[in-house]
Amino acid sequence: MADDPNNMKVGEIAIRVRYPEADQMGVLHHSKYWVYFEMGRTELLRKTGWTYRDVEASGLYLVLSKCACRYIAPAYYDEELILITTVTRMGAARIDHAYELRRKSDGTLLTTAETTLACVDRAGTVQVMPDSIRKFNDA
Amino acid sequence: MADDPNNMKVGEIAIRVRYPEADQMGVLHHSKYWVYFEMGRTELLRKTGWTYRDVEASGLYLVLSKCACRYIAPAYYDEELILITTVTRMGAARIDHAYELRRKSDGTLLTTAETTLACVDRAGTVQVMPDSIRKFNDA
Amino acid sequence: MADDPNNMKVGEIAIRVRYPEADQMGVLHHSKYWVYFEMGRTELLRKTGWTYRDVEASGLYLVLSKCACRYIAPAYYDEELILITTVTRMGAARIDHAYELRRKSDGTLLTTAETTLACVDRAGTVQVMPDSIRKFNDA
Amino acid sequence: MADDPNNMKVGEIAIRVRYPEADQMGVLHHSKYWVYFEMGRTELLRKTGWTYRDVEASGLYLVLSKCACRYIAPAYYDEELILITTVTRMGAARIDHAYELRRKSDGTLLTTAETTLACVDRAGTVQVMPDSIRKFNDA
Repeated sequence: MADDPNNMKVGEIAIRVRYPEADQMGVLHHSKYWVYFEMGRTELLRKTGWTYRDVEASGLYLVLSKCACRYIAPAYYDEELILITTVTRMGAARIDHAYELRRKSDGTLLTTAETTLACVDRAGTVQVMPDSIRKFNDA
Repeated sequence: MADDPNNMKVGEIAIRVRYPEADQMGVLHHSKYWVYFEMGRTELLRKTGWTYRDVEASGLYLVLSKCACRYIAPAYYDEELILITTVTRMGAARIDHAYELRRKSDGTLLTTAETTLACVDRAGTVQVMPDSIRKFNDA
Repeated sequence: MADDPNNMKVGEIAIRVRYPEADQMGVLHHSKYWVYFEMGRTELLRKTGWTYRDVEASGLYLVLSKCACRYIAPAYYDEELILITTVTRMGAARIDHAYELRRKSDGTLLTTAETTLACVDRAGTVQVMPDSIRKFNDA
Repeated sequence: MADDPNNMKVGEIAIRVRYPEADQMGVLHHSKYWVYFEMGRTELLRKTGWTYRDVEASGLYLVLSKCACRYIAPAYYDEELILITTVTRMGAARIDHAYELRRKSDGTLLTTAETTLACVDRAGTVQVMPDSIRKFNDA
């Protein structure tokens, strides 16, 4: 289950589309999905007892190194959406996630996406991921 | 040449990173690149003598159906960037673009990306692209 | 009480600061507060049984005609904030709101603001507000 | 003249409204004007030979302490706008600006605004403004 509090590899959040996130076509602008996916990662990390704020406070940063998305159906202003975020691969210095965004009312799949994050220090040098994040692996 | 006014398949624009586009890492947030790529497409279309505003006024919309991006090096607040946008494939109802974003001062490649747009009407039904856009093809 | 479901003149929402809403100073960018205030109005309206989406579907729009804000203390990434939105004046074709944004953890007042909205039709002509909104008045 | 390179108290910039800056009413969202006004301040500062990036590199920050805006007429997607930014008052640790935003094609006044910035250090303590900025005063 996406909202199982003991499964640290999968998380579910609800998001309501804000007014300025919809463009003049009346649909969620494609650039805004990436903000939602980042929220999905943030809340998934919070399940481990750490926060991304802690990660940065420790001098590490998780930066996007690649991403891809398929836009299947539009999301509209004020709609409630459900985002499922899954850790699909964990390396020494990278994490891959997959995303499924659905309309809450009827479960319609709106978008699927994948991202790869790299763990770097302030100077941008690749660093081994802290254990607090890598424990996703053992979940 | 990217800025050849007669080549309607390739366009070049300059963009300066705005303050709120940089996040607390001090770098251009990954979601903002998609806004820049859209600006690249907009200005490339303008070369044909049409604008995307005209496209929408005619009842058609070019919507993102898929996208992918590689983030190679960060962009910083107030930096001037050069974006090269290229039409890589033109179908009856779709256009593919490729993007190269570089730092203006030293030419460093920051990001490469690809997108596929579908041509739809207000109801979201796929439509044949207007000739005004398809003439990219013959350029 | 701000969260009294029967008081349609005052509403309270919780908001968590998103990563790209903080700028490179590490604080919520001043432009983003207006998005939060709009969310406060949206949720306050929802208490009346109507939504702003319904308002627009009926052909009316509530557009900002003026606004003012005082920034007292910064909000940081990932902080939980409490926004209290109050209807302070209701005219035939305008609504005034006041806002108080506080840090949830310690109640620190971060920002106060005021806005005036005008009710217009698609063409921008001022219109009398629908009763569904004006009933805030009798709450 | 707003674009007199020797008058460091007044600056003029041109801005084209980007697609995701317009909301589903088809007009520039009210929150985006503040991003434009900040661009106006940034370019005005650049006239003095300094940049805001330099200011931050020196450990100082100019933060918004209050603002007000009147929205007179809407701006639309892809329109070219002209923003005139003026320093109206310079104190030891604050700067006030006024803004006029006009449609380029016909000069229509869209918005007027005022802001007060405070000069602070990283910890948020008020600091005397650097001379490089205060020389606006003598312009």
